[in-house]
Amino acid sequence: MSHVKKIAKEIITGIDRIIEKVSDEEINRILNVLLNARDDKKILIIGTGRSGFVGKCFALRLMHLGFNVYVAGETITPALKKEDLVIAISGSGTTRTVVTQAEVAKEIGAKVIAITSRPESPLGRISDLVVVVKGRTKIAKEEDYVSRQMMGEHEPLAPLGTMFELSTMIFLDCLIAELMNRMGEREDDLRKRHAVIE
Amino acid sequence: MSHVKKIAKEIITGIDRIIEKVSDEEINRILNVLLNARDDKKILIIGTGRSGFVGKCFALRLMHLGFNVYVAGETITPALKKEDLVIAISGSGTTRTVVTQAEVAKEIGAKVIAITSRPESPLGRISDLVVVVKGRTKIAKEEDYVSRQMMGEHEPLAPLGTMFELSTMIFLDCLIAELMNRMGEREDDLRKRHAVIE
Amino acid sequence: MSHVKKIAKEIITGIDRIIEKVSDEEINRILNVLLNARDDKKILIIGTGRSGFVGKCFALRLMHLGFNVYVAGETITPALKKEDLVIAISGSGTTRTVVTQAEVAKEIGAKVIAITSRPESPLGRISDLVVVVKGRTKIAKEEDYVSRQMMGEHEPLAPLGTMFELSTMIFLDCLIAELMNRMGEREDDLRKRHAVIE
Amino acid sequence: MSHVKKIAKEIITGIDRIIEKVSDEEINRILNVLLNARDDKKILIIGTGRSGFVGKCFALRLMHLGFNVYVAGETITPALKKEDLVIAISGSGTTRTVVTQAEVAKEIGAKVIAITSRPESPLGRISDLVVVVKGRTKIAKEEDYVSRQMMGEHEPLAPLGTMFELSTMIFLDCLIAELMNRMGEREDDLRKRHAVIE
Repeated sequence: MSHVKKIAKEIITGIDRIIEKVSDEEINRILNVLLNARDDKKILIIGTGRSGFVGKCFALRLMHLGFNVYVAGETITPALKKEDLVIAISGSGTTRTVVTQAEVAKEIGAKVIAITSRPESPLGRISDLVVVVKGRTKIAKEEDYVSRQMMGEHEPLAPLGTMFELSTMIFLDCLIAELMNRMGEREDDLRKRHAVIE
Repeated sequence: MSHVKKIAKEIITGIDRIIEKVSDEEINRILNVLLNARDDKKILIIGTGRSGFVGKCFALRLMHLGFNVYVAGETITPALKKEDLVIAISGSGTTRTVVTQAEVAKEIGAKVIAITSRPESPLGRISDLVVVVKGRTKIAKEEDYVSRQMMGEHEPLAPLGTMFELSTMIFLDCLIAELMNRMGEREDDLRKRHAVIE
Repeated sequence: MSHVKKIAKEIITGIDRIIEKVSDEEINRILNVLLNARDDKKILIIGTGRSGFVGKCFALRLMHLGFNVYVAGETITPALKKEDLVIAISGSGTTRTVVTQAEVAKEIGAKVIAITSRPESPLGRISDLVVVVKGRTKIAKEEDYVSRQMMGEHEPLAPLGTMFELSTMIFLDCLIAELMNRMGEREDDLRKRHAVIE
Repeated sequence: MSHVKKIAKEIITGIDRIIEKVSDEEINRILNVLLNARDDKKILIIGTGRSGFVGKCFALRLMHLGFNVYVAGETITPALKKEDLVIAISGSGTTRTVVTQAEVAKEIGAKVIAITSRPESPLGRISDLVVVVKGRTKIAKEEDYVSRQMMGEHEPLAPLGTMFELSTMIFLDCLIAELMNRMGEREDDLRKRHAVIE
């Protein structure tokens, strides 16, 4: 097995463990909030960098499911109202612009859901619902990796927020699958809402 | 008067002449198509580079006026249908991705409006309505400018597509002003639809 | 003359007056800071909404001139260092994310240039150099416009930040023209740096 | 175990199998091309929708590793030259704008690497190197899932390109980990290149 594939096994095992540890109660709560938002609420996704791209992937699928969803920082982002929903993605929960935007959302009266590794962070503390997705822990022990040993044993295989970002990406797609179940939506329904001019 | 302000006078005079030459009939036609789209059609704006940014400025104001508008290439861009409207902005009318996207729109059966300097271009030829906004002509004669003489008399003051982009930017804001008139929309109505989380 | 063209005359006259009033000293200072940044400094453009798109138009031309320029919020935005330069565009000078980003820039030690209508705003106050570009004043008196009278005399022709955005767009292109002069750059030099895959 | 976590197990198993099947030779070739590009070549990432966001995640990490990388469609995208490298991501290999952009790249003489499920697609056929990452196969058999049975047995758990997108996201992060190994880059080196103004 090539070295890249050994890395893949390690990372995939890490993601598996991270998602296992997400609280079932938090999962149920976010599903209910989302199902509740479908008919008449706007959903605004906020996040920067790779967490922002993960959020955009989620936003696209929510749109395919018929949700009224927007992404902060894009051209078409309507005025948020107090009945609306903000989903903020930040591993550290400290990204300045994300915290600022979440604060503005709270001032308007909107509900804020945080997806973060750190519920005690500034983002976590001001959110109405926190879904905790842990970042790397296990895979930081890479003394097993000959090629990493040259760098010392504390050097992680997946740098910076990678484990949070990958785990959140997959976790959010699992929410999509479950929303499809509960809403009775089929792949073909999603395809009809998929952009043709990309 | 500083040199920068002399340049400004020259560029502003150029824009004034370019907008003067836009066909009144084409203006009426685009206004009617837009007014007609308001209630039940989606509008998709396409364009790349600076023309794309000008298109996004227009898209924002259309959203503030209550239109159901989207920008190609952004996350939330729903499936286009045959009753929908595409507005393509390209000075040369030859930008490959814009022409490709306009072709896809035509295949779907959507109406395509081109804003271009060249009605005989590939974009112009496949569009249902062409609004011609000329690019630079007058201000290319800058032998008057001492500072430009060192570069030879054919060197333009406003490089590349600048005059088309500036003229289109202002022209589209004039359409917004006229749409406000005709629709009885006030600034305060727009403000209410303005994003609060940017 | 069609109504849209009358609006254009009015708006163009307004832009002309706004640019006339920009301080020559501020123009010289921003030109010098920019020329000084060319060889070894990064420039980061910040702004949201239409001001952000105006900033992106400016960023593109700075790149065409060979500057090492980036736009906040896009994928490829490297770490800012204390020798770098931030240009923040906000008519009101109060946009929360812009002020937050400018504050972070100041903490790093970078120089911040604000382009704003309000030098006394939060953005203006923390900036090292403020270039004041006024927003609408004159064109708010549209009792002359029959079509506007129905809305009352205080209703502006160009809503929200339009006059600031248009004036800044043109003003920044005048800086580009002057930078070309001073740097001896020709249109053909810019064309070579223009993206071919858009 | 909650239903969402059962879905996660199934999706993670699917990703594991997809990455196992990527050709070791193709992995070595893309690693060599990337290592070879580091010092003096530009890398341009192209892709639309969720594949585009996966590409942006990869672009960010390449930037953190010191590569000279850009993303098509963003403001700062310099002119591509014949020595440069394009990485195109498209599960189907048929996305029109991606194929158009890859064609333009080939006309310039740049090398094109495709990451796609279908090497025989239009994108695959014009590329210099194809890395095949399969999309869903196994997890389409979800008669095991009670909740999916109501929709019929051919309804997939992960809709549309999800399995390709998730597998590619993880696969590209494994390339990053291996590039870090080979280049002797540590997490702290990446952190220094990480944007501070997001």
